[in-house]
Amino acid sequence: MERLKRTDRLVVLSSILTKNPNTLYSLNDLAVMTGAAKSTISEDLTLIKELLLSHSLGELCSLSGAAGGIFYKPLQNEKGSKDFLKELADRLNDRERVIPGGFLYMNDVIFDPHIISRIGEIFYTKFQHTVPDFIVTIETKGIPVAAMTARSFNIPLIIVRNSGRVTEGSSVNINYLSGSTNRIQTMSLARRALPDHAKVLIIDDFMKGGGTAQGMVNLMKEFNGVVVGIGVVMTTRNPEQKLIKDYTALLELISIDAETNEVIIKPFLGKNVLF
Amino acid sequence: MERLKRTDRLVVLSSILTKNPNTLYSLNDLAVMTGAAKSTISEDLTLIKELLLSHSLGELCSLSGAAGGIFYKPLQNEKGSKDFLKELADRLNDRERVIPGGFLYMNDVIFDPHIISRIGEIFYTKFQHTVPDFIVTIETKGIPVAAMTARSFNIPLIIVRNSGRVTEGSSVNINYLSGSTNRIQTMSLARRALPDHAKVLIIDDFMKGGGTAQGMVNLMKEFNGVVVGIGVVMTTRNPEQKLIKDYTALLELISIDAETNEVIIKPFLGKNVLF
Repeated sequence: MERLKRTDRLVVLSSILTKNPNTLYSLNDLAVMTGAAKSTISEDLTLIKELLLSHSLGELCSLSGAAGGIFYKPLQNEKGSKDFLKELADRLNDRERVIPGGFLYMNDVIFDPHIISRIGEIFYTKFQHTVPDFIVTIETKGIPVAAMTARSFNIPLIIVRNSGRVTEGSSVNINYLSGSTNRIQTMSLARRALPDHAKVLIIDDFMKGGGTAQGMVNLMKEFNGVVVGIGVVMTTRNPEQKLIKDYTALLELISIDAETNEVIIKPFLGKNVLF
Repeated sequence: MERLKRTDRLVVLSSILTKNPNTLYSLNDLAVMTGAAKSTISEDLTLIKELLLSHSLGELCSLSGAAGGIFYKPLQNEKGSKDFLKELADRLNDRERVIPGGFLYMNDVIFDPHIISRIGEIFYTKFQHTVPDFIVTIETKGIPVAAMTARSFNIPLIIVRNSGRVTEGSSVNINYLSGSTNRIQTMSLARRALPDHAKVLIIDDFMKGGGTAQGMVNLMKEFNGVVVGIGVVMTTRNPEQKLIKDYTALLELISIDAETNEVIIKPFLGKNVLF
């Protein structure tokens, strides 16, 4: 690679690092990409690190040693995240979203890449200290948010299925009581999908009674997995007693009025509040 | 915001733009963020644009007029993409992946955020000229790839369900013949999920007979939608005659030997080959 000027190196380095969260680049790789000495790259990275920090654009971190290098953490700051969640709650507080049966339509929000990329970074900020090996979700509506969370962590996504699939080989199946439908259902995960003793972070779009999340926790036990955290986009105020105690949510559905269709959603302020 | 030095502005601008593909920033926004005059920002952007181009890191494009601004296109170059697909094919060419019944296990690949972010950018590169309004996929395994493609385009994702869900209101259901199971199945999309006359790009993980893709095309007709393209991660050489003619794939499953479990997968070289 040709030798770049300092400003040019800074542009190339910051683009590569921030585009690829939690991807480790050795100083050597970066030196080859930009044609600069490793010591020069180190100085560049120090400057980029300061600038990202001062603009709340995340953090650069280094890992020392032979397999070391530098990687970008897409951390979100408290003020920006609070504003974002407030706006999101306002957008969801809309009578037009209420569907007969008292359900809330929110697919446009949880399938919007700009919103869910941000949510993925917020979950990353909350759970990064738990150092999960995998993000686990259950089909279907939580998958895009879980995929973006997996992208922020740069760790694999695991999707639990609603029934065993012949195309995935032998699987572990468990029954669980779904709080929202009040019916016994089956969830399933291919034996080869998850190694033994993995640390998993469970991410889903919605929690009501916590039955589905509890099912996923039980399923993880079958793989000797350790659940390091549970994050959902929205939880409901009722029932207050959920099967799962230790979870966090971004938003709370406080009430839906079946007659007027009035919806009240607010940023979550429960026990494990994010910020 | 404090006034930044030129090098500092370059780092901040390139990080913000490349982190948020196809997100429009007005010169005014960027001027406020960095404390510089709009004319200065314009010069910075010209430099960033040249550097991204010369390092195959994508393109900066401007939109003129009152609602104008600048946005980042995450374009992938031909050489890098070919190498990437070749490596991916090699990784999948593994007897251990063959599951009784002649299926191929590839969840670890299509749920890996680093791989699917790249695939999303490759699909973006291929289909950006078709200017879709939505990415459409069907549950379950194609969702992460489709979500990353939606992220590259910065357009909403739509997930077709395998049956109508009470929580999404009235829906349009159609029957289709799934090539892989040779059974009549139902697919369903909430009426409110997609406006009339939308331009949609269909993305899925796998195509065999093309029945599922054909079903999605028919479903889109019910919404007066226009299918501007179909992209799948992997297609099969057999059957050669598929229900869908006009699609592109990244990889081709040429054969699985039921006795030896030998798998042959290569980068796709069919009619609508990507590069």
